[in-house]
This record gives sequence, structure tokens and C-alpha cells, in this order.
Amino acid sequence: MTKVTAQLSVSLDGFYAGPRHTGDGDWVDSAESAGFFRITRWATDAMAWRERQGFAGGERDTDSEIIAESFAAAGAYVMGRRMADGGEEPWGDEPPFRAPVFVVTHRPRQPLARLGGTTFTYVTDGVASAVEQARAVAGGKNVAVAGGGSLVRQVLKAGLLDELELHIVPVLLGTGLSLFDADLDLDDKEAIELTPTRVVPTPQVTHIRYAVRGRAALVLDDRGSGGGPTAIRQ
Amino acid sequence: MTKVTAQLSVSLDGFYAGPRHTGDGDWVDSAESAGFFRITRWATDAMAWRERQGFAGGERDTDSEIIAESFAAAGAYVMGRRMADGGEEPWGDEPPFRAPVFVVTHRPRQPLARLGGTTFTYVTDGVASAVEQARAVAGGKNVAVAGGGSLVRQVLKAGLLDELELHIVPVLLGTGLSLFDADLDLDDKEAIELTPTRVVPTPQVTHIRYAVRGRAALVLDDRGSGGGPTAIRQ
Repeated sequence: MTKVTAQLSVSLDGFYAGPRHTGDGDWVDSAESAGFFRITRWATDAMAWRERQGFAGGERDTDSEIIAESFAAAGAYVMGRRMADGGEEPWGDEPPFRAPVFVVTHRPRQPLARLGGTTFTYVTDGVASAVEQARAVAGGKNVAVAGGGSLVRQVLKAGLLDELELHIVPVLLGTGLSLFDADLDLDDKEAIELTPTRVVPTPQVTHIRYAVRGRAALVLDDRGSGGGPTAIRQ
Repeated sequence: MTKVTAQLSVSLDGFYAGPRHTGDGDWVDSAESAGFFRITRWATDAMAWRERQGFAGGERDTDSEIIAESFAAAGAYVMGRRMADGGEEPWGDEPPFRAPVFVVTHRPRQPLARLGGTTFTYVTDGVASAVEQARAVAGGKNVAVAGGGSLVRQVLKAGLLDELELHIVPVLLGTGLSLFDADLDLDDKEAIELTPTRVVPTPQVTHIRYAVRGRAALVLDDRGSGGGPTAIRQ
């Protein structure tokens, strides 16, 4: 059965890139890219990622298997406009997706067919529509939300995400583009609950897969004391 | 050899409690406590924590073993003032630490001796001094930074932390008190690197222990393409 999944590499403090590059100069020289390159290094060192990019070499290790598995599980992709724009040139004639990609954007644009089975379709009527269009062509495989972080949050907020896999990279950036922020629209005493379903540790990164259970109220427990609440405040 | 360690429970989005309680009303009824109680529930359900609090029952499981191990490894504690103040009443006559505790504070105060081996010493000349005083009496065991998050950040920022264990709870709070924030004083293209040394997954929480390696420059890699950088931007 088709699941809607997302997987993203994040620093231990929750950033998927450095602070947003806005000024002059090349993106590749920015603090945003410096953070991004550090966070994604485990993937670019892996053979399965390099093969899809047409690069030689790489490590044939557990990290590489995780990537190969993600590619194999995806029947279609949903992607944010900024990621699609940023990738258009470096991905070249044969992007690594080899499946239909639905780009959520405000700008209408003709579909773009690339070599190797990757097509880009530009969806202007919102994230739910993009997910539905991707589901229709996923052939029973998963709809993978490819990123960026803002799109992952939108899908999560809309209650459309079934599974989230985080690749937690052992580095603190201190600042940057945050996967999670306050725009999840949670009430004062409300949370989104998940269940960890798989944890794969490697020297470079900890891969944790979660099933998304959904919104739930935060209920005061009594710390089991039989009396009033007693807590160690941190 | 004595290591300086910290361990803290955090939500998947990096919060160790809900948003700070500032207004009127009891802390236990606040959004801060609602988040805190959710994040620490795995611990309060565990037998090893309950025993130290004088509570009956609890689960004798891997989570409980992790807590027992933390208590056993600590020869002395360093603690923030807010946590010490907040705990003073609920911890009662016999606090769970059973070791010397050094409280970092601006307010001079006479030492406080409690039953079971817990003593509170109030240190007014900074976090480095508190760590040194704790090290001197730790008897070769670890100096454990008990929290809260602000103190953990100070110790990390000062380069004094050897080991960090995060108990990552599968919930998104959206907002709250953040373990990590920008006050780590990192430069634009600088990060703190860590190495994961142990990962213990349980149904309630993922325990990841890191060795802190220290500050390092974020270096632009070439994505291994042999040419200019090509990246999937997220």
C-alpha cells in the first residue's frame, strides 16, 4: 500500500542546512551550503548516491544501503519549488529520481521530461493535490516527499505524512534552516506523536524511522507518586 | 578517568519542556510542564527512576537500565539554579542524587545536606569552577551535568563537555525550551563535531550517546564529482 514518506538529513540540533543564503555571491560559498554539505556528507560519500549522480566510487556500506532502499521504495516524489530550482542545473539531463516528480509551486510551468524516467510536473493548487497526483502514479510504491524542510512541515501539518525517516548527523550547527519550527500550528498543550519503527546506527549518522501517529493532547501525569505531581524540573 | 557528561531527554524537535512558564498560576498546570512531563515520561515510568524517588512500581526494562547506569556512573553533579530551586520541594528530604551536587548560581547560600548522601553546594564563580569542584570529589566517577538545558549549553560552549547522551522522545512539541540554540557562539562556517558511541533503541525513546570532539570548520567538499560542486539542495 502506498505510504507518504519523507526522509531528511538533520544536524543534532535539527538543521538541514546553514542559515538561508539571501545576499550576493554564489550559494556554494554561503554558510547555508557549508552547513548543507556537512549534513549531507554521509550520503555523498555513499556509493548508492554516487551511482545515481553518475559519480564513480563511494562506500558500499550500511549508509549506502539506506539510500538504495529509499530510492527503491519511491514510486513518485513531491518536491518544494526551491529544491527543484536549485537542483535543475546540477542534476543535469538525467536526474537521480527516475520517477515522476511533482513540484509544489506558485508558478505555472510546462512539464519537463528528463532522461532515465524522471519527469517534473509543476503543481500550483497546493501540497495535498501534489500528494494525490503522486499517489496516482506511484504504482503501489511510496510517495516520497523529497524536501526541503518547509515542504516536509507542510505535509506533516496537513496530516498527510505516514512515515518520517531522519538521518541524524552528529554535528551541532547552532543556527540554520530548521526542519521543525513553530509553524506546525500546534495548540498550547498539543503535540504530534510518532512511534520509532527502525533505528540503524552507523559511525556517520543515526537513521531513525518513525510512523506518524498524529496530533494528541499533552496530558498531565501524576509522576506515579500517588499524590500530587512531583517532578525533576530540568 | 573522570569524564564530564550530560544527558537530557528531548523531543524530536529538540525541546526539553514546553514554552517557559512566566505568568501566574502553578508551574504544574503550565504548557512548560505539559511538555516536560511528556518528554520525561519514559523515565518516570521506569523502575530505576521510581526507586530513587521512593515510588513503588515501574517497568524493569532497558529504559530503566539506562537510568540506573547514569546514576551509577555519576560521582558528583553540576546543576543549574532553576532546576535546583524547582526540585528542592519535590525531591524532599532524600533527593535522588546520593552524591555532591554543585549548583551554579548568582546567589550565595550556605551548603545544604540532605539524607542519602546528597549535598547541595552553591557556586557563584561560574560553571568552570563548579565543574572543577565536582571533579575533585567525584572519586574517579563522572561529573554529570544534571541540567537544565541552559547549563548544558554553557558547559558545551566552554569546551568542558566530554560526553552527551540524548534520550530522543518520538514527539514533536513545535515550541518550548530548546536544548540547543544560537548561544553556542559558533562562527558562520563553524560547527561542534561529535561521534556517536552508543545507540540504544527502545519503543519509548532512542538513547544516543556522543563523544564531543569539539569545534571544527565547515569545509566545502566537492561532492566527489571531480569538478565543481553539485548538490541536491534541500
